Amino acid sequence: MTSHWFQQPCPTIDPAMTDSAQQRQLNLTKPAGSLGRLEDLAVSFCAWQQTLAPKLQNIKIAIFAADHGVCAQGVSAFPQEVTAQMVLNFVHGGAAISVLAKQLDAQFEVINIGVNTALPDSPTLVNKPIRLSTSDLSETEAMSHSELLLALSIGREHAAKTNDHLFIGGEMGIGNTTAASAIFSLLLNLAPSETVGPGTGVDANGITHKQLVVTKAIALHAPHIHNELDVLARVGGFEIAGLVGAYIGSAQRGVPVLIDGFITTAAALLACRINPSVRDWLVFAHRSAEPAHYRALQALDANPLLDLGMRLGEGSGAAIAVPIIASALNLHNHMATFDSAGVSS
Amino acid sequence: MTSHWFQQPCPTIDPAMTDSAQQRQLNLTKPAGSLGRLEDLAVSFCAWQQTLAPKLQNIKIAIFAADHGVCAQGVSAFPQEVTAQMVLNFVHGGAAISVLAKQLDAQFEVINIGVNTALPDSPTLVNKPIRLSTSDLSETEAMSHSELLLALSIGREHAAKTNDHLFIGGEMGIGNTTAASAIFSLLLNLAPSETVGPGTGVDANGITHKQLVVTKAIALHAPHIHNELDVLARVGGFEIAGLVGAYIGSAQRGVPVLIDGFITTAAALLACRINPSVRDWLVFAHRSAEPAHYRALQALDANPLLDLGMRLGEGSGAAIAVPIIASALNLHNHMATFDSAGVSS
Repeated sequence: MTSHWFQQPCPTIDPAMTDSAQQRQLNLTKPAGSLGRLEDLAVSFCAWQQTLAPKLQNIKIAIFAADHGVCAQGVSAFPQEVTAQMVLNFVHGGAAISVLAKQLDAQFEVINIGVNTALPDSPTLVNKPIRLSTSDLSETEAMSHSELLLALSIGREHAAKTNDHLFIGGEMGIGNTTAASAIFSLLLNLAPSETVGPGTGVDANGITHKQLVVTKAIALHAPHIHNELDVLARVGGFEIAGLVGAYIGSAQRGVPVLIDGFITTAAALLACRINPSVRDWLVFAHRSAEPAHYRALQALDANPLLDLGMRLGEGSGAAIAVPIIASALNLHNHMATFDSAGVSS
Repeated sequence: MTSHWFQQPCPTIDPAMTDSAQQRQLNLTKPAGSLGRLEDLAVSFCAWQQTLAPKLQNIKIAIFAADHGVCAQGVSAFPQEVTAQMVLNFVHGGAAISVLAKQLDAQFEVINIGVNTALPDSPTLVNKPIRLSTSDLSETEAMSHSELLLALSIGREHAAKTNDHLFIGGEMGIGNTTAASAIFSLLLNLAPSETVGPGTGVDANGITHKQLVVTKAIALHAPHIHNELDVLARVGGFEIAGLVGAYIGSAQRGVPVLIDGFITTAAALLACRINPSVRDWLVFAHRSAEPAHYRALQALDANPLLDLGMRLGEGSGAAIAVPIIASALNLHNHMATFDSAGVSS
């Protein structure tokens, strides 16, 4: 494999800054360790931002949307046109992630990277469709290698900038839990019965059917898989590839990435397999109700912040976790020390 | 038992409003149920506030502080003077809960209900000490029955008002995990080995010693326990009794209460035993790292929102959970419906 941009290493974490941040935590007026994971978050942000006073002001949320040829197999509880309808809903402010992005005062951008309907440009919507949907992954490669490289590049273009403090990637694509399950089956060597779930809400018969579709896809593609890029091209989606590029690009620019749910964890796993230095820059927001998510999290040694039974995607679970991080940094920056407050330690 | 104010029932929840709120959730542009517990929170707040557009603007945080005679037994990792020092730290803005209250733009009040040092009045600090610390619960009753009634009343005075949207109670009192463990042992019939933990950070020997102190207290008091008020008077604390009064008072005024951690759950359990109608008005914020907290939560059939390894008290875990509720209400109020957004359902 030639050396691509996405294989370039991310910045390394400075252990001296980590030590200094931990020392500040020990001096704050609380029993040592009593803020639990909030302390770890604060220390990580100190190390990422190379400061003892980390900030969370510039948050970038980028939603990648695309359609999936595998929808022809009837794998989703919703019709395919919902992808485009939801993109318009994102833009008009009515979707969950739109409401949350406004609440967080975040930069919010939707990237049409392969929706099967022409969509009007707008300040929030960027139209860069690679094609009007991937091909049906149960019958052929979802995308070509050159389409994959293009999707990764588009992802990087819409990643965080160096002065951002956090990147959240979201996705919209009816049928994309099928793609994510196929990715997990191939990368983690798991049977479709272990990776396929209800997605947006198919019933037990629907799950059985979805398992058969993924089984067929794996049988078709497994003999041709030589690396992670093959997995992504053969059973992925344009929006998943966009996320992979955006995660790697953000981490390479020294911006931590908050991972949302099932689909985005597939992108995160691919990003870490393609470029292991990305892992140090990831925070996992929540445990999805999609049953196989826990296996993917285990494979990434990831312990999400929240477990609220969410399974919406769009980056919504990540957005819900942002105030936890904000509180962690606020406490780190503004609590008194034992000395300054005259409290016996 | 004569009928006291704290035995008067709380308002009942209107099932019609719950149904209407659930119906709105089903119409929002997302797969049914995909916002998980955020949907339940929104529906609960609709029912509590009797509106389909619930608010979370007026948040009341009241911290009750008192000292514990049982500190003489060496049960805490911190010296007793830390109670008063931390009260001043609350007032001066340096404690975790002070930082979080400011972040949440909440009403913030500290009530000295029995700290063993005279403290200066201030806009944030109310001095109503019942006594300069409880008596040593391992040797005698922590407080008299009349002191208990006074503490409950002070709690009610500092509860939420009817136009508040949420009440958070916090506590400060070196030695109060010992009192809470004794309360759980007596109310739930659990051995001290099942209810005693490290608190602010005593080591294994310290835990063993603390268990012996609680064992002695239980042997002394159990024969004289006839009801929950006896438990609270004999092994409780002024700040715990204040919380019980504040929880009951808030719920009676129709304001939901967000329960923090180990000590506040002891107060919540007492409140529900004294007045079972309180239970419908409680939300549990987080699972404390204090080992016995899970037993207390089980006894209350409570499933907290967060599990972040926190064990600070002060109401800090509850404050961390507030933005989750804010997001849930924001989504409920501002997401588009399938009809309004033209999305196929």
